[in-house]
Amino acid sequence: MKRIMLTVAYDGTYYHGWQFQNNAKTIEGELNKALSRLLKTEIEVIGASRTDAGVHAMCNAAVFDTEAEIPPEKYAYALNQMLPLEIRIRKSQEVPADFHPRRTDTIKTYEYRIDCEEFADPLKSRYAYFTYVPLNEELMREAAAYLVGTHDFKSFCSINTTATTTVRTIFDIQVIREGVDIIIRITGNGFLYNMVRIIAGTLMDVGRGKYPPQMLERILEKKDRCAAGPTAPPNGLILKELHFPELDEFAK
Amino acid sequence: MKRIMLTVAYDGTYYHGWQFQNNAKTIEGELNKALSRLLKTEIEVIGASRTDAGVHAMCNAAVFDTEAEIPPEKYAYALNQMLPLEIRIRKSQEVPADFHPRRTDTIKTYEYRIDCEEFADPLKSRYAYFTYVPLNEELMREAAAYLVGTHDFKSFCSINTTATTTVRTIFDIQVIREGVDIIIRITGNGFLYNMVRIIAGTLMDVGRGKYPPQMLERILEKKDRCAAGPTAPPNGLILKELHFPELDEFAK
Repeated sequence: MKRIMLTVAYDGTYYHGWQFQNNAKTIEGELNKALSRLLKTEIEVIGASRTDAGVHAMCNAAVFDTEAEIPPEKYAYALNQMLPLEIRIRKSQEVPADFHPRRTDTIKTYEYRIDCEEFADPLKSRYAYFTYVPLNEELMREAAAYLVGTHDFKSFCSINTTATTTVRTIFDIQVIREGVDIIIRITGNGFLYNMVRIIAGTLMDVGRGKYPPQMLERILEKKDRCAAGPTAPPNGLILKELHFPELDEFAK
Repeated sequence: MKRIMLTVAYDGTYYHGWQFQNNAKTIEGELNKALSRLLKTEIEVIGASRTDAGVHAMCNAAVFDTEAEIPPEKYAYALNQMLPLEIRIRKSQEVPADFHPRRTDTIKTYEYRIDCEEFADPLKSRYAYFTYVPLNEELMREAAAYLVGTHDFKSFCSINTTATTTVRTIFDIQVIREGVDIIIRITGNGFLYNMVRIIAGTLMDVGRGKYPPQMLERILEKKDRCAAGPTAPPNGLILKELHFPELDEFAK
């Protein structure tokens, strides 16, 4: 028996998120379908990040077990023949039999892209949130600094969460100007439901001058979803990088 | 009577090109519809570049005449309320009454983007042509140099052309590596039907080693469409910049 990990990129525009649903098109559902067809037995993958509907990924991860004799690196080629074009397997590799992509220390990097042109650029609209309201990136940067570190992020978590603890660690937040776009780049060891989108919505509130950067400290303290800004729309969000330190040794 | 010029950006994926067609969705058709609704009289725009089906633009141009009292710069705002999201007016301005966007010296820049990853990136597939065959960009650069200048581009023109002359001037072609992508950036004073896509297809043939860069000289000499490479798919092509020297004085 081998455990295989797939590195998965997708355009989430028309998908109901990662997680399998009976009556909706999801990334996990498409992967299960393609793998079950390839291996002629029912396969259910375990995903690393259960991204929301409309969110994109450069490198989500999914694992499954199989006794098939296919060389691990060949799954990418075989599955790409079967999957819709919006989903591509970028890499397939063997991982330890006890590796679980959600029960391990993972370093995740998300990017939230904001199109700040005067009119929405139609060539960007699938992968960026458009706002014509000017944003002060300096203020956004100051606000972001309050979130770095280990905090209770209850205020930045959808009330629909099922998480047992709302404490998380953010290693780094950068607010980057790229041409006319602003990119919020967040790296951490796991994120709560809607957390990155609520952080993006809150930083945009600061950027618009709705409240000062220092308010972030108060918002964290309140531990109340209503204290933070709105949940920014999904299309601007991309899961950019996943790093599993547990696999570093194995890969050698 | 005022002549107004619109600067138009669009995602051409699901459009049958620029030019009006009775039974198909086109950029020109959508502009005519929105303007006619706004001005409550039938308006037909004149476009600068009649891009093919599936081709994108950052800055195509269209002019129309009106006696309406709307300030020229306000058309962009009004039309963007009415147009589909894939089409955005980036700017509207008054131009001289005798300005015709196709009967003037225009400097046009097109970019053809090639996704050279091992597997097609789903976040790029709308705006880049994917090929897993490795391309030698040095050879492509050498080949491109033969096309710069004033030549008879008959070999690089679809046989469906209605052009009276196939002589055109290319000011510059750059082959740029941007991450894993290759971008072919072409600037000239007008292009024949499918010319940029045939140049892209031919340069890719060279990049793959199908024939050497020097062959470009022979292909030009032959004045025969069959001598050149295939017409590259439309999705990789973007009309990037238009410059009307005639308007430089007027704008001051």
